[in-house]
Amino acid sequence: MTQTTPTLDRVLSHVDEHIDDATGRLFDLLRIESISTDPAYADACRQAADVLVADLETIGFTASRRDTTGHPMVVAHSSSGSSDAANTAPHVLFYGHYDVQPVDPLNLWHRPPFEPAIDETPDGPVIRARGAADDKGQLMTFVEACRAWKAVTGSLPTQVSLFFEGEEESGSPSLIPFMKENADELRADIALVCDTGMWDTNTPVISTRLRGMVGEQITVTGPSLDLHSGMYGGPAMNPIRVLTRILADLHDDQGRVTLDGFYEGVEEIPADVLEQWAGLGMDETEWLNAVGLSRPAGEKGRTVLEQVWARPTAEVNGITGGYTGAGFKTVLPSEASAKLSFRLVGTQDPDKVRDAWRSHVEARLPPDCTASYVEKDGSPATVMATDRAEYEIARQALSAEWPNEAVFAGSGGSIPVVGHIKRLLQMDSLLIGFGLDDDAIHSPNEKYSMRSFHKGIRSWVRVLGALGEQHGAQ
Amino acid sequence: MTQTTPTLDRVLSHVDEHIDDATGRLFDLLRIESISTDPAYADACRQAADVLVADLETIGFTASRRDTTGHPMVVAHSSSGSSDAANTAPHVLFYGHYDVQPVDPLNLWHRPPFEPAIDETPDGPVIRARGAADDKGQLMTFVEACRAWKAVTGSLPTQVSLFFEGEEESGSPSLIPFMKENADELRADIALVCDTGMWDTNTPVISTRLRGMVGEQITVTGPSLDLHSGMYGGPAMNPIRVLTRILADLHDDQGRVTLDGFYEGVEEIPADVLEQWAGLGMDETEWLNAVGLSRPAGEKGRTVLEQVWARPTAEVNGITGGYTGAGFKTVLPSEASAKLSFRLVGTQDPDKVRDAWRSHVEARLPPDCTASYVEKDGSPATVMATDRAEYEIARQALSAEWPNEAVFAGSGGSIPVVGHIKRLLQMDSLLIGFGLDDDAIHSPNEKYSMRSFHKGIRSWVRVLGALGEQHGAQ
Repeated sequence: MTQTTPTLDRVLSHVDEHIDDATGRLFDLLRIESISTDPAYADACRQAADVLVADLETIGFTASRRDTTGHPMVVAHSSSGSSDAANTAPHVLFYGHYDVQPVDPLNLWHRPPFEPAIDETPDGPVIRARGAADDKGQLMTFVEACRAWKAVTGSLPTQVSLFFEGEEESGSPSLIPFMKENADELRADIALVCDTGMWDTNTPVISTRLRGMVGEQITVTGPSLDLHSGMYGGPAMNPIRVLTRILADLHDDQGRVTLDGFYEGVEEIPADVLEQWAGLGMDETEWLNAVGLSRPAGEKGRTVLEQVWARPTAEVNGITGGYTGAGFKTVLPSEASAKLSFRLVGTQDPDKVRDAWRSHVEARLPPDCTASYVEKDGSPATVMATDRAEYEIARQALSAEWPNEAVFAGSGGSIPVVGHIKRLLQMDSLLIGFGLDDDAIHSPNEKYSMRSFHKGIRSWVRVLGALGEQHGAQ
Repeated sequence: MTQTTPTLDRVLSHVDEHIDDATGRLFDLLRIESISTDPAYADACRQAADVLVADLETIGFTASRRDTTGHPMVVAHSSSGSSDAANTAPHVLFYGHYDVQPVDPLNLWHRPPFEPAIDETPDGPVIRARGAADDKGQLMTFVEACRAWKAVTGSLPTQVSLFFEGEEESGSPSLIPFMKENADELRADIALVCDTGMWDTNTPVISTRLRGMVGEQITVTGPSLDLHSGMYGGPAMNPIRVLTRILADLHDDQGRVTLDGFYEGVEEIPADVLEQWAGLGMDETEWLNAVGLSRPAGEKGRTVLEQVWARPTAEVNGITGGYTGAGFKTVLPSEASAKLSFRLVGTQDPDKVRDAWRSHVEARLPPDCTASYVEKDGSPATVMATDRAEYEIARQALSAEWPNEAVFAGSGGSIPVVGHIKRLLQMDSLLIGFGLDDDAIHSPNEKYSMRSFHKGIRSWVRVLGALGEQHGAQ
């Protein structure tokens, strides 16, 4: 197996020559306000799916929008018979999502979030827009790699299916039913997922562990109406007081989560893996300083990498209650609510974590308060089977593109679809992505480095080529 | 001193005959959206002041709008020489406020808050609108009483000045400077304040103790930008977690406030006063049930009346942080904030309470978080000098109007102006009001009982008459 061949070089050159066209196509996608969590943007989500279907058809895929009770899926397959290699090559299923996070607080954006532009920065040009990195930019690196292979060779080096969803940022309510109903169509030899990041600007990563997640919204209700804090302050239970007690009690003074049984299934990382992580030479102070912090806030006695990759968390993502407008209002509110996420590792059971959280709440509810819950789909953590040949093949292909060798690393985020792909389609996933820590995904001024986009396309060109070669070599 | 005289009867009859006109004038005032806390309503506040000035002039007052750096004041004086009695009678200063609370949550109102109407209820007709009870309806009971005296007798039984502000619901930033600058003009023999409630529908109250208040807004800032809770959850300090700890630690498990030195100046109520309060026969369960609660949430071992009238509190009136829209967003926010009010009793020092709160915060701030504060003017508690003759005279006048004897009672609310009147004008205040516990002031669907309005006017007719008689008898 070689890292470059005359054909591969021609495809890579094609990518370089047409990078402006590729950027323009990404901009078209970024202009679509496909915020999945807010029903007001349902039409935009449908439009994004339609644009992707049309684009994939221009590359020769058989593509279709597949409506669900939520936002539509996009499914595409490389046409059989397009080339001898593709006919017999291993079959990959690429997953991405075309939906994006909400944009608030809008006033912190330096430009409109859905008017993409190239910003020159000290670190080079970046594509600035909501979804630039998460996940439209990443998704398009793979689409453009396929386009280049087809343009230069008339075929793909390996059989390719694509599967895009539009609900990744809103709990993926349609995902499991759709995957179950279409399992035979979606099943391939291995999944490729582009929704993760680089170790640093020169070092690509194959993510081999993902944290799971349990999402919960809680509303604590006390008095049956908002009260005047002068008339009722004292005797009337304030639901904000109850909620803050519930949330404050989630952590002990060592930064550990206090839920009963929370650490069941949390395994200590083997010494050799810890050693490998230490070898990455992470500068914790620098990493924290980049976001205005100076010391790790998680469990005491754990490195930052352990805290992000291998330890579970409980975080409050939002809280509201009472009067939050300008000025003051001496109200004693009827209710208060919060949104939480628990990141899971090892074999922690999402259902048990949810139950333990609700028990924690009930134990702290005074007799005059009630709690109601909204559940966001839970997913367990995933650890990849890195002994499969494709992991090392992809690692070498990535290493050929970037200055530094690619590494196997953890990821603090949760990509529930990887667990679903394993459970429902019996497939492993190769998680390769080109995001950077300062991409500000989910935040104002999200960006995707132009270098990530360009070299990301080239990376997939190489990975597809190498997987095709793997087949040829068998 | 007699409770009725032929003249008094004629004035009371005039009130009864013209109650519809009085209600119409109140409706005109209620239609003005004079929300003082939101700068968007500054014009409406000015309009309310102008309407009051014009109305007072029709009764023969010399009235003027007095502009400030905030919303304007209204000051009016009964013209000298209008009658022999008024020339030599004791001089009263009536205080009220024409501004109202915000109306959110608007969706819980059953009708538009600034389109007043009479609603028929099982307890009789009520005036429904924002400000119906707090304080436009109460304020107009006094204005209408003056109008009736003038209409029937051509004069007022005692010299009357009026002083209305438009910032009571937003911390009264202009009040102290204005009172200082105009102290000679505002000073009278005693102040009359109509911003309190009845004991029950048949029992009027003269409020003899008011809690003080300290208002504070706090913002805790952690990371310099909103972060993704997958990428940073664990090592990055979440300001919501810090804020909930700060707020949860405000109370111990006995319902006591934990701030250092908080109970300095909080005096135990004398046994005879407690006995008097017990004699009011309050049904705690019924009082709590009316707002969907069942047991007192304040300090253990204290009655509800003690908790509201004689014990200090710490309440969170609003909290916000992170994503609070529809759906979920796994953000780790840069900041979180809350609005608090501390109700004070006895000789608690507002400045010391504010300092103790801020020390409480600083002691709980991790190194990576900062706190910023917005201060709302603090006021100490007030206990009235009920040995002045006017208190008993007014109590008897009220007792003549209502089915039950009027009582001296506490009030859980804070009326800072009463402290300012004492300190800046060296005047005691008679606090007489006709609000009911279910008026929903500061809440959706605020109302003022038609009976409160009508008998409130009649009550002030009697009180003014009795104060004039007191003079005549001296």
